[in-house]
Order: sequence, then structure tokens, then C-alpha cells
Amino acid sequence: MARSKARAKRPAARTGRFTYGFGGNRADGKADMKNLLGGKGANLAEMARMKLPVPPGFTISTDVCTHYYAHGRKYPSALKPQVKAALAQVEKLTGRKFGDPQKPLLVSVRSGARASMPGMMDTILNLGLNDLTVQGIIRETGNERFAYDSYRRFVQMYGDVVLDLKPQNKTERDPFEIALEEKKRQRGVTLDTELDADALRELVHEFKLLIKMRKGVVFPEEPEEQLWGAIGAVFGSWMNERAVVYRKLNDIPDSWGTAVNVQSMVFGNMGADSGTGVAFTRNPSDGTNEFYGEFLMNAQGEDVVAGIRTPLPIAELKGENPRVFQQLMKVRATLERHYREVMDIEFTIQQGTLYMLQCRVGKRTATAAVKIAVDMVKEKLIKPREALKRIDPERLNELLRPIFDGDAKAEAIEGGRLLAKGLNAGPGAATGKIAFHAEDAEAMAARGDSVILVRVETSPEDIRGMAASQGILTARGGMTSHAALVGRQMGKVCVVGCETLLVDYARGELRVNGRDTVLRSGDPISIDGFTGEVFAGAITTKPSEVVQVLVDRTLDGAKAPVYKLYAQVMKWADAERRLHIRTNADLPEQCAAALAFGAEGVGLCRTEHMFFGEGKIGPMREMILAETTDQRRAALAKLLPLQRADFEGIFRVMKGKPVTIRTIDPPLHEFLPHDQEGQRALAAEMGIPAEKVHNRVEALHEFNPMLGFRGCRLGLVFPEITEMQARAIFEAAANVRKAGIPVEPEVMIPLVGHPKELENQAAIVRRVAAEVMAAAKVKFKYLVGTMIEVPRGALVADEIARTAEFFSFGTNDLTQMTLGVSRDDAARFLTPYVDQFEIYPRNPFESLDTVGVGQMMQIAAQKGRATTRGLKLGICGEHGGDPLSVQFCHQIGLDYVSCSPYRVPIARLAAAQAALAR
Amino acid sequence: MARSKARAKRPAARTGRFTYGFGGNRADGKADMKNLLGGKGANLAEMARMKLPVPPGFTISTDVCTHYYAHGRKYPSALKPQVKAALAQVEKLTGRKFGDPQKPLLVSVRSGARASMPGMMDTILNLGLNDLTVQGIIRETGNERFAYDSYRRFVQMYGDVVLDLKPQNKTERDPFEIALEEKKRQRGVTLDTELDADALRELVHEFKLLIKMRKGVVFPEEPEEQLWGAIGAVFGSWMNERAVVYRKLNDIPDSWGTAVNVQSMVFGNMGADSGTGVAFTRNPSDGTNEFYGEFLMNAQGEDVVAGIRTPLPIAELKGENPRVFQQLMKVRATLERHYREVMDIEFTIQQGTLYMLQCRVGKRTATAAVKIAVDMVKEKLIKPREALKRIDPERLNELLRPIFDGDAKAEAIEGGRLLAKGLNAGPGAATGKIAFHAEDAEAMAARGDSVILVRVETSPEDIRGMAASQGILTARGGMTSHAALVGRQMGKVCVVGCETLLVDYARGELRVNGRDTVLRSGDPISIDGFTGEVFAGAITTKPSEVVQVLVDRTLDGAKAPVYKLYAQVMKWADAERRLHIRTNADLPEQCAAALAFGAEGVGLCRTEHMFFGEGKIGPMREMILAETTDQRRAALAKLLPLQRADFEGIFRVMKGKPVTIRTIDPPLHEFLPHDQEGQRALAAEMGIPAEKVHNRVEALHEFNPMLGFRGCRLGLVFPEITEMQARAIFEAAANVRKAGIPVEPEVMIPLVGHPKELENQAAIVRRVAAEVMAAAKVKFKYLVGTMIEVPRGALVADEIARTAEFFSFGTNDLTQMTLGVSRDDAARFLTPYVDQFEIYPRNPFESLDTVGVGQMMQIAAQKGRATTRGLKLGICGEHGGDPLSVQFCHQIGLDYVSCSPYRVPIARLAAAQAALAR
Repeated sequence: MARSKARAKRPAARTGRFTYGFGGNRADGKADMKNLLGGKGANLAEMARMKLPVPPGFTISTDVCTHYYAHGRKYPSALKPQVKAALAQVEKLTGRKFGDPQKPLLVSVRSGARASMPGMMDTILNLGLNDLTVQGIIRETGNERFAYDSYRRFVQMYGDVVLDLKPQNKTERDPFEIALEEKKRQRGVTLDTELDADALRELVHEFKLLIKMRKGVVFPEEPEEQLWGAIGAVFGSWMNERAVVYRKLNDIPDSWGTAVNVQSMVFGNMGADSGTGVAFTRNPSDGTNEFYGEFLMNAQGEDVVAGIRTPLPIAELKGENPRVFQQLMKVRATLERHYREVMDIEFTIQQGTLYMLQCRVGKRTATAAVKIAVDMVKEKLIKPREALKRIDPERLNELLRPIFDGDAKAEAIEGGRLLAKGLNAGPGAATGKIAFHAEDAEAMAARGDSVILVRVETSPEDIRGMAASQGILTARGGMTSHAALVGRQMGKVCVVGCETLLVDYARGELRVNGRDTVLRSGDPISIDGFTGEVFAGAITTKPSEVVQVLVDRTLDGAKAPVYKLYAQVMKWADAERRLHIRTNADLPEQCAAALAFGAEGVGLCRTEHMFFGEGKIGPMREMILAETTDQRRAALAKLLPLQRADFEGIFRVMKGKPVTIRTIDPPLHEFLPHDQEGQRALAAEMGIPAEKVHNRVEALHEFNPMLGFRGCRLGLVFPEITEMQARAIFEAAANVRKAGIPVEPEVMIPLVGHPKELENQAAIVRRVAAEVMAAAKVKFKYLVGTMIEVPRGALVADEIARTAEFFSFGTNDLTQMTLGVSRDDAARFLTPYVDQFEIYPRNPFESLDTVGVGQMMQIAAQKGRATTRGLKLGICGEHGGDPLSVQFCHQIGLDYVSCSPYRVPIARLAAAQAALAR
Repeated sequence: MARSKARAKRPAARTGRFTYGFGGNRADGKADMKNLLGGKGANLAEMARMKLPVPPGFTISTDVCTHYYAHGRKYPSALKPQVKAALAQVEKLTGRKFGDPQKPLLVSVRSGARASMPGMMDTILNLGLNDLTVQGIIRETGNERFAYDSYRRFVQMYGDVVLDLKPQNKTERDPFEIALEEKKRQRGVTLDTELDADALRELVHEFKLLIKMRKGVVFPEEPEEQLWGAIGAVFGSWMNERAVVYRKLNDIPDSWGTAVNVQSMVFGNMGADSGTGVAFTRNPSDGTNEFYGEFLMNAQGEDVVAGIRTPLPIAELKGENPRVFQQLMKVRATLERHYREVMDIEFTIQQGTLYMLQCRVGKRTATAAVKIAVDMVKEKLIKPREALKRIDPERLNELLRPIFDGDAKAEAIEGGRLLAKGLNAGPGAATGKIAFHAEDAEAMAARGDSVILVRVETSPEDIRGMAASQGILTARGGMTSHAALVGRQMGKVCVVGCETLLVDYARGELRVNGRDTVLRSGDPISIDGFTGEVFAGAITTKPSEVVQVLVDRTLDGAKAPVYKLYAQVMKWADAERRLHIRTNADLPEQCAAALAFGAEGVGLCRTEHMFFGEGKIGPMREMILAETTDQRRAALAKLLPLQRADFEGIFRVMKGKPVTIRTIDPPLHEFLPHDQEGQRALAAEMGIPAEKVHNRVEALHEFNPMLGFRGCRLGLVFPEITEMQARAIFEAAANVRKAGIPVEPEVMIPLVGHPKELENQAAIVRRVAAEVMAAAKVKFKYLVGTMIEVPRGALVADEIARTAEFFSFGTNDLTQMTLGVSRDDAARFLTPYVDQFEIYPRNPFESLDTVGVGQMMQIAAQKGRATTRGLKLGICGEHGGDPLSVQFCHQIGLDYVSCSPYRVPIARLAAAQAALAR
């Protein structure tokens, strides 16, 4: 809703206000104007209003970006004069002038979209420097080296970002870096900081020459030209590939656009009393209520974020500059009180004065998110409902993620396999094969391997590879480096800044300082995102704390802090949600796990999975190979006690909670071997000619099995199968009922497209139910219902509801048929459909296509309930565990969603959020 | 509508009126009460009202049948007294009494459903005879032989039909017939008529004994018991297998039920001045306005219909009994004037007095139907609109059916292959393998053979076999025999009463009297349904008169009487219909044929069929095997001129009529060989390793190709394919336009489920159109539209209509996806779904599932037109040639239907009927 509103609003924005100033304890914008000003711009404005020390500047709104792309990369005509005026205001507040040789105004130009996109957009610092203004800076600061270092950085950034001077291929290194190295070689020094003003001035000119030679353009000396170049580059970067990929991965629509922030420069590299840092108001990794961050003295902000130098913990700033540290602690408290959230801040100290350059809501691990939410409720900063809204349901699975088995890990340590210890940037335990390049990680993952991406540091180009990996390990960078931020956001196990590791891309090797261990691409490695430990080889993982408490019952909940947080959140969620949560489970142990996670019933028990169980595939195949009804009945008679035992196990575990059992669904050929070998073996086993098995497999072959002889179609043609299954269900229910345990079976008929199909099958089920209850002299309630998964079934749901006592949306098949897309065959076009053509916002098999499939569901829900008021409606497709889909199910009034056991907590939270979103 | 109303009305019919009397120049019912009284009952009532000589009787309504099946085969309680009263009325009118030993009333009990079901229901004659009443008949008629012959027939029929004494297996002959033969042997006679009264009396007792021994029941002597037994048998026969199969084949719902007619007997076998006959008021074979029928003296009606004795032409009755003949001629005129239709009548002459036993609308060949309709308009009996309604569009194809090639036939005659000449009961020419049994015919047809079913005579048990055959040939029976009636109705080529043929089932041989030719099962035979000729061996067939005139242009229309009738009907149809008719044609010659049949455009030109043409499959495969876009473009460049030439040919033929061309639709693997052999050959041809071809085929393999990488999905991922096709279309159009021929191309994008898919493809098409027109300096109108064949496409049709300039319903795929049924895999369950479970009334791939798929179409039509008023809508699925589906398309407001060329006339007539049905 919000998206389409925003989109609809845009076309009008051809004239009007495009720039919003901030600074001097006031601002044109504020925090809730993120859609227009981007996150960075809105929060800079808000901080200025809060009278925090924000260097003056202005924001060019996202409307300009939209206009820019809607009009062939042209700006609205009103923009130029407005920028001029905004700049004049900054000049007034700072007492400096853009391009002035005496007191030049230098600015940063930064992107800032509505949603935070770390590292994705480009930034220019020190803009306004040229051969004239640099002299002003020298005069002002008396620091020629600082002035030329700033100039050198500006030319380098501008050349890279605006003028697009980049390495021409993967093997080439950055040309500016090569020139820098060469300069250091010439001067016989090793560190950048050892280069003197002269060398830096030479570099400035060498950089400009490089630009002229390689790009054929002259570096612009005119500050205004520089500014418009930078603004254009920011808007242009909105559509660069990294940004597009990031948005895709994070469900951010292209139409949002980015804002541009132009802000007067402050310098953290103006000497030993200057510095820069980033911090979280609380620990983003585990949620502890402590000021958490890093800083570097005599450095610009990019140095911290890029992970090039490893910064110091924020606590050490107290020793370095106690006044500024106290000031920061006050800022921290002010921000948390004001935003009632954990904030992620960037600051700069210029010659002892603190400046706030950014604040935004801090990204955090799932564990931290839960802890912070629970703590803030305790601190009365927020209410439980607010706490619930702040936790991403999808990421709750991080709390359920495996950890290393203690013994196996101890053994690995004893065995000397502990290679290094880095920063614990993303919790969880991961074991996988080493990949040194993002492309390798993608390829290995595509082959089904578990992958750990090992890099010196990661960059935005790596995000696909990061997404494909189980874990991320870097040698450099801090808790706020790219790897840490993005890895955490993706919910990856992540260890960063592991400085003793030597990553040699050229040789494809990972070595450890002071050890002779060498690991190569493809070798197994293990990382512990809770502790930061890195191990050679694989280590057995074991269940998470929550799983140990709830499922394995090997841990006392009272002694499990993460579990306690989880339990608190689930309690709050259960109080809010209207949707019931069931589980898709086929075995008693799966049911037990789901119950432990809070499932209120079984929404889908697939009986066919049982046929693959021990001792069952034989009679099943016999049944399929039967040539007469009598032979088929004989085989079914063998299956009956086996299925009955399966159902008994489930009913016993579920103790009267509803259990929806689907009658056989897949085509019969799925149960027969398709290769000659297997067919021969089966024939031998059954004492029949191999040819017979082969012929039967051939006869059962289908061109489009999805649309073939399956589901209730089997039950109509072979009613004895339905009868056997119904008998197994009801005999099991009768047995369990007699043992004093309540039962509530719900028999579900799949693939119904016509009311008569259900009538036919329901009649069999009800007859058998009556027979079994009469024979067993026991009564229990049961329902007969149907899957709605065939479009026709949705269209005639009013007629189907005359027989069905419940509907369960089988959205996997409903998606396949409504979209005309075979899930198994879709990759070749569905990937470009989502990524390249943006036809579907997300893979429709992962997140409901609410427009198409959702419309089908709404038709069915409305028609079904027109026949039977309050007809029970649920969903048992895999979408039942997807938060966005859960929200849709809530909106259209379903009674329950059903998902895999480990997604039950996610669904509970998503259901609560859906209820709160009303 | 009529059906559901009738069904809805039934439950109330527990009490009320159940019997309707007729006779004595008045009746309770009338002709328009067929639903309640059945066809026979309603027309008996009507004839009585018309003061025609109808033996008195009464009809038990179809409501009783419905009640009977709805209540476990029990009658409504009010029935018994009503039957008693009705019988009393008959007694009063006839002056006879049921069971009276002096003047006994004898009755016939006949079924009579709403639709005529010849031979399907059972009939009992002479009911009321027993050992007492037979004496009354003897006394009355003084004809002991007649009395016992009637008694013998009654016991035989009653034993067969009511008491179910039938042959126990296929080889056993009828037990009554065996007893009859034995009696003739004893008495040393050969004909039934040679048996004297004594022998017949003995037979009556022997028959009763047979019944007691074989069925364990005593033949009922009490007439009332006989009557209720017969009524029960009639109602019971409604659900016998033959009846159920017949209804299925003829789309008659089970819910209609049958009525029972109880009528006082008249006797055609009361001596030489008695007789019986059947006649049509016009020739039902070719439509000639002549009294057409047959009679037998001294016989009962069943003798004529069953084809046991070959009757005499009706004209000979004039010599036999000129008074009765004149009376019949008057009846003929009266009936035609009254009904304004050709009627099929049954009559009996009892001792010189004429009685009318039945009249009904006469079944006729398609040729006759057309001729009669046209003639009656000329005679001002009916208006053209009425004439149109009377012709079954489906059967129009009989007028287009092949005839024997004149030379080949002459040669066959010269070669002595003309075996015999029978009655020309069903027009057309057929050649096929001989099958002597219906089962054989079914089996041979299932193997793909063309079959001629050759029987002594056919019976209702044979209808499946008749349906499976191309032609039917019988040795006995007249134009109104079972074979003739049913064969004509099915539209089969049919020759009957070919008395010189000797059919020997035991030996599986067909011989000809006086010749030594022997044909065996499986041997080829040819029959000419226009002339009645039978030939040994195959004879080349050639196009029908209409096709010769219109398509082949080898015959002058002015000299072609059948063509002239056809042309008249088409002219009337075109004046009434609102729907336009297009054709599905891929080649210029198909387009030409369709134009000749009246097509107004091409509704679907499938470009992929062209790729299989000469010289095209090579570059096509090259295109598919391409590994880069450049390689693909190179292959496409080879295809471009070939496709362009194809399109030019079509545009030239269509001369400015709209031509809808669909871009490539099937998955690419369809164009590659799937067997090793073929792959090796292709590899050799292309000079690449066989493995590469194999790998590509493997890579393209899909689990569900119907839902796979096809349709516009190909065009999105490989835009160069769409581009090439668009270029070929528009360059062809430009060339033709420049040659002074108008063009109107419509480019159709298949498999669209999302508006963005169409936007993407339409942009390519429109860009290419603009480029081509600019380059060629020519302008022409063109449209870009889409198939609606994916359910999602129908659901978002409002959005799609923003880009689409027309919709064409691809109901083949829309049916597959809406029903979740793969057409290729459906046989195993769709056949029982239609025949056994009655889930769908007809195969939904042949006749639209209007409830499901039709609902989808209505949603799309309504949404599409909500966006674009008057949006052009058509259908190009195979349903476009199915009359019922055409009617639905008319009802929901489509602009056109498109069908195969030879179905265009059918669609024209169906469209006219749809318009008239409003």
C-alpha cells in the first residue's frame, strides 16, 4: 500500500520544493520524511532539530531522482536555483564560501535512500577543492599535508565515482592505488601517512593526468561543476548493478529513488586531536545494553567503514578524549530516548569538536533484536506491541540455527584445528567448503555444497556470493565493516577482522600467520559466529539453545537466556495474533517438534511420504503393479496396518489437536523406479518379469505429471485406495480415542476442481468413518474437507463448500496452475523474471503472488463462505511460513496458516504483526 | 437452462398428476409437454387432439421415473389409483375390460423419453393375455392361431424384458428362439407363420416352463400384475447399460427420465387385411419431398423396426389397400401442416382400419436436413430463421465429407469389385477394414484403423462399435432399421438391407450370394452411402460436392444441387449471426480453403508449424543450439527470409482480412530430436559433437513442458526471436502492401500471465513495426494483442488490456491450467470422469467447460472491457469450432470465434443459432 501510494504521488513533482536544509539547530525536514529525504537526510534534519552538533547542509529530495529517471536523466527546472539558495544558506551558517580561495566551503555529497543500503551508493568527500581553494585550506589550517591529503582523496574519489576511472578487469588493481603505491616506492615509505605534502601534491596532479589519459576528460576545477557532477553520479548510482541487486535481495522497489545529501565537511584527519568513528547505542550482535562502536584517530569516516584499518573499541575513546566521550554518551542517551530505538551513528571529531554525521536505526542480529525489544519493554521505552513490530519474523530462524556441538568443538581445539579468532559479527555455527570469490561461492552453492566465503574484505560486488554462502569470514574490517553489516542483515554466520589470516587470492590459499596450515579452495572450514572462532575442517553442529530447550529437552529453559527472550516474544505474539498456526508434518517426531514451537495442529500430513517408509514401499509398489481390483485390494490390505500405525503415532503426539491428513496426492509412477537397474531389482524382488515393471512404468509415464493422474483423480478411479486410507485414519483415531486420548482427524481430499469429485471421495470417507466407529463402538468428531489448489476449484468454491467442511489452500500447486509455471522447470525464466524484468517482486513460490494467486484465494474464500458462513479456511502451501504471505492470509480472513515445524515461531510472530498492522 | 429448470422442478413431484390419458379425439396432454410425457406420449396426445385415429391409452409421466430413482425404486403413492382410473377410461373408450374373459383389453407398454432413443428402451405388446383372456380373443376373432401367436409373442417379450430371461453368454442364442426353432423342426416347417395354433399354444406353455426353470418365477397370469411388471421394466430399463451409453453419446442427462405409455392394442397380424408400417413424410436420406416408408402385411410393428423381414416400399401399399393408402397420404399432409416438420410415423392396419401408433420428428441425414429446411422455406411452411434452427451444425460436416473418386469407383466396378447394392441409409463414402463385431470395431479403431462394421443387423448393444466405425453395412433391415436410424444419427456412412451379402459370424467371413468372393475380418471394403454400393477393397475417396465447388473449384456451383442448398443455408446464417468467424490456419492453402468456407480472417496462425517446413528446421535447430546471442542472431537471420515468405503467402491470400499471427509458443526442445539416432544425425549435419546436441536436449528437458519455458517466456529471455518474427511479419506486410494488396496483421503474444510480459514483448513488436515501415516507406494498420490462456492472465485482464489491443482466448491451455488437467495425460481419468462419474458432461477439451473455464473467460472479458470499451475478443482454442462452445462465446459477447478451415461452415451456422437463441 505504502509503495503504490508513494509511486502514485510522484508524477506531480515536476515543480515545488526539491531541497531541504538542515543545521544551526533547525531543519526543513524531520525524521518521518524518509520517503522524501531518504533515511540519512531525514535523520540529519532530525538531529539538527534535536540540537545535536550536525554540520550544516541540505538534502535534494527523492522526487528529483524519480523525475530524473522518468525524464531521460534530466532534472526538474526548479532544481538549479533551489540548490543555489540552499548552498547559500550553508555558506551563511558556516561562514564559508563555495570556491572561495580564502575560506572555501568544502562539502560531502552522499546518497541516502529511504531504506538503508550500506556501501551500495557512492560518496564524494572534500568536494570544492581545487588548485586555488586548497591554498585557502593550507592558509587556514597551516597544515599543507592535510590539505593535499584531502585534495588527493577528493580527486581519487571523484575520478572513481563521477568520472568512472576503475580497473578495466578483475585482475587489474585500482589505478589510483597503483599510482599511490608507486609514489610510496619512490619515496621509500610504506604507509600512506608517511607521504609528505609534496608527494601528495604530486599525486593530485598525477591523478588528474591519469584521468585525462584514461578517460579523456579534464578534471573539473570549478566547484559548482564538481557539485553537479557528484549529484549526477549519486542519482546515476541508483541504477548501477550493485544497487539493483541489493534492492532485489532486500525487496526495495526501484521506484523509491535516492536523495542526495550535500553537507559541509568536517575532518577527522586534521591531526591527532581529530578522529572519526561509528557506534551503536547497544551491542548489535547480542543486544547487550552497552555503547558499542569503534573509532580511529586522524582518519576520515570511510576508513572505518571500509575496514582498511582496524579501529579501536569505542570505550578507549574515554582515555583518548574524555570530554568528547562523555558528549557522545549523552548523544547516545538522547538518541535512544528520542527514537526509542537502538541507533547506529557516525561521528567525526574535528580538532577536539564532536560532529554528528549520521544516525539511523541500527541493524542487529536476530538475537540482539529480540533482546533489545524485550529490554526496551522492561525499560518502558516501548510497549510489547511495538517490540513485536520491530522483530523481523524471517530472521527469527537465526535463534533456531544450529550451534557447534560442544564436544566436537572441544576436540577440534584439542586437535589444534582452531586457526584464528576474529570478531563475532553474525551468530550461528557454519561448516562448509572454502570459496575465495563470490562467483565460486555461487557456483559451489548451485552444486549443492555448503560454502564459507573467505575474503580479505568484502565489497558490494560480493553480495550474491554472500547470499549463496552459509558463512562469511574476512581477514580485515570491524563490526561495522561491509561484511559484518551485510552478513548480519542477511542472517549469515559471520566472522570478520580475523587479522592473523592471510588470504592469497592469486594462489587460492588461506594461510595463518605463524602456522604452516594451508587451506585451499574447496577445503572444509568451520566458523563460529557466536565466538568469532575459525576452525580447519568440519565440526558437527548441534541444535540452537531454543531447540535444545523445546525440542531436544536437553537444556533447562531457566538457564537459557536466549530461549527466555524467545519465549517472551512468542508470548506477546500469541496475545496479539488472530491466525492459528499449524504445521506441515508427516511423522510423529516432526509433529512433536512443531508442538514444541507452538503449533496448534497439523495443517498438512502428506500420506505419500509414509509410503516411502520402511516396509511400505514394497506393498505400495505391489498395489501399483496390480492388474485387477482384487490384486490391488490385497496390496492395500498390507498397507492398511502400516498406515494405521503411522496415524496412531501422530494422533498420540497431537493429543486432540486437529490433524489434517491428505489422501494420496502424487502420480503413482513416483513410487516406481525409473531406471532399468531399479526396475530389474523390483521385478526380481516381486518375482515378476522385469518387462512387466518396465511396461507399467511406461504406461504410467506422463508428459505433464503435475497436471496428470494424481490427487483425487486416483481416488476416483481406484476408490479402494481412498477407502484404505480412510480406514487407516479412522481405525487409528478409534484406537487412540479408546486409549483415552482425544483425537480430531480432518481428512483432506487433494486436487479437487469439481464439486462432484469431492462428493465422490467424501462419501467413501464418511461411509468408512461410520463403519469404523460402529465396529469400534467409539465416537469422535471428524471433518472432511478439500485442498483448493486447482483454479477451477477456487472458481466453484461455493459449490464445493456444500460438501467441504474446510478449505486448505494448496498454494504450491495453485501458484503453478494460476501462473502456468512448473516450479521444477521455472528457474530458466523465473530468475530473470524477478531479477531482470521485475515481473514478479519476489519468487512467487517463496512469497505469494497476492495479485494473481491471492485473487484466486480471495474468490474461493468469499465464495466458500457465501455457502457456509465461517467456513474454516487455512493454507498449507509453503507460503504458510513466509511472513508477507502470512500477512496476506490474515488480511483475507483465513483461520490458520500451516508451515514446516521450524517456521512455526516465524509464523506466530508474522501473524501477530499482521494483526497489529490492521 | 432447460435442464436445470426441469431438475429443480422434480423434487416437488411426490403428489399431483401422474397419468395423462389420450384417445377418442381428445387428450390430457399435448405436443409441447414432451418433458413430462416423453416424445411418444406427447405426440400420441397431440395426434388424438388432431382427431387422427389413435388407439386410446395413457401416459405415466417422467416425474414418476425421477421419483422412482430418487426414492430407491419406489413409486409415488398416488400413482396406483391414478393408473386404475386411467385404465378405466381406456376400458370405457374401447368398450373392453382388462382381464375380462369375454372382451379383454390388451395393451402395449412402451417407454418414451423426452428425446427419441430408438431401440434403446424395451417394449411389451399384447399385455393382458393369459390362459383365460386368450379364449376371449379366440372367441372374438375366431382366429385361434392369431390369438396364440399374440400370446406366444407376449410371453416371449415379457420373459425377456420383465423377467430377464436372456442368453447367458455371447455364444448362446436366445432361449425362446431355440424353443421356437425346435418347434418348427418338430412340425417340419421352416417359417414362424407355418406354425399352427396348436403348436403356438404348446409354445406358450413351453415358454412359461422355460421361465420357471431358468428364472425360478411363475409367469404372472393376473393382468394387473403383468402391467406393473411391465411398468417397472420400462422404468428399470432407463438405467440399463445400453440406455446409459446412448445418453452419454447423445448428451442426454440421466435426470430427464422416461415416461411409460400404456395403449390399447391394435393388431397388424390379424390376417391378410392387417399390416403395419413406418414412414417418413419426406425422404430422410436425401430430403426429397416424397412419402417414404415401408410396410409389411400381417405383421406386428416390431417386425419392421427390427429388420427381421425386409418390408415393402410404402408406394406398394397403394395397390394393397388404396383406401388406407389415401388415408395415410392425408395423415402425412395433416402432420406436416400441423408440425411444420418432417415426421416419422408408425401405423397399424387392423382388419382394414388404420391406426396411428406414433409420430415424431423424423431423423435425417445432414443433406436431407438442409434440403428439407430449404424446401420448407420455399413452401412457406417455415421462415428461414426456423430453418436455421433445425440444422445441427455439427452434422453439417457430412456435406463436406469425401465421396469416392469417380475414376477409382469406375475402375472398381470394371474390375468386378462391386459386390452388392443395399439401401443408401447414410451418405458419404467410406473405406476401411471389416469388423464383424462391435468389440472388434472398437479395438481396431483404437489401433488407428479405419473400420467398416459389417453385421447381419445391428442392435443397441452395437452402438459403441458403430460409433468407432467409419461406416456401417448390414445384410438385413430397411431404411428405418436400427442400423439406418442410429447410423444416420451418428452421421456415419451407412448401407443397410444388402440382402445378397452372407455374413458368417462363426467363420468370420463375408460372402456374396452367387459369387466366390470371400472377405475376412480385417480385409478392406468400401461402401457408398449415397448409392448403397458395396465394393471389395479400398477405393480412393475424393472431396465432397461442396469442397469441389468451393475449395478445389473443379465443379460449377450451378450444377451442384447439394452445394446450392449449402450456400442458401450459409446465406441465411450469415444474415443472423453476430459473431465473426475466423480460421486457425498456418499455410496459404489452408487460408484459401477457409476463405472458401467463409472465414473472415485468420484467428490463429501458429508460426512454429512453419519452422518444421522445408529448409527451416535446420536454422531453427541452429538457433536453439546457439551458445551466444550472436550465434542465435546468425541463425535467426537465416530464418527471417523464410518466415517472411510464409507470411507474404498468407497476406496475399487473405487480401486485407485480419491475420492474427502468434509468436513462437512451444518449448524449444520440441524442435530437437529426442532419440540418440536423431541427435547423432543432427550433430553430423551441423558439424558439431553429438554430445553437444545431447547435452542441449538434456538441458532443455522439462518435467512439465506445458508449464515450462515457452510462449512469451522465450520471447522475454531471447528478445531476438520476437524481434525476428516481428520483422518477418512486418516486412512481409510491407511487401504485400506495396504490391497493392491491403494487409491487416495482428501480432499475438502467447502465454501472458502478467501485464509486464506483454509490455515487454509489445514494445519490441512496435519498435520493429516502426523501423520496418520507416525503411519501406509504407504505412499499414496493425494490432498487438495477447492470448488469454493462463488463469492469472484472465485475473489481471484489466491491467493487460492497457497494452493489449485484442484478447484471443486460448481455451486449450486455459482448460489445461484452469482444470489442472494435461490434455496429453488425461485419458486415464477424463474418460471415466465423463462416462462413469459424470463430472463433466462432455470432454472439456472438445466442448468448453463453461462453468469453470467459461467463468475464467467471463472474468477476463469483463475486466478487459472495463479498461477498454469494446476491446476485440476472440477465441482460437479448438472449442471455436464446437457449436455449444460457439453459443457460449456468443453469450459472453466475444467478437469472433476461430476454428479449423473445415469447421468454418459449422461455426457460421452455430453462430447464427446462438444469435437466434437470444
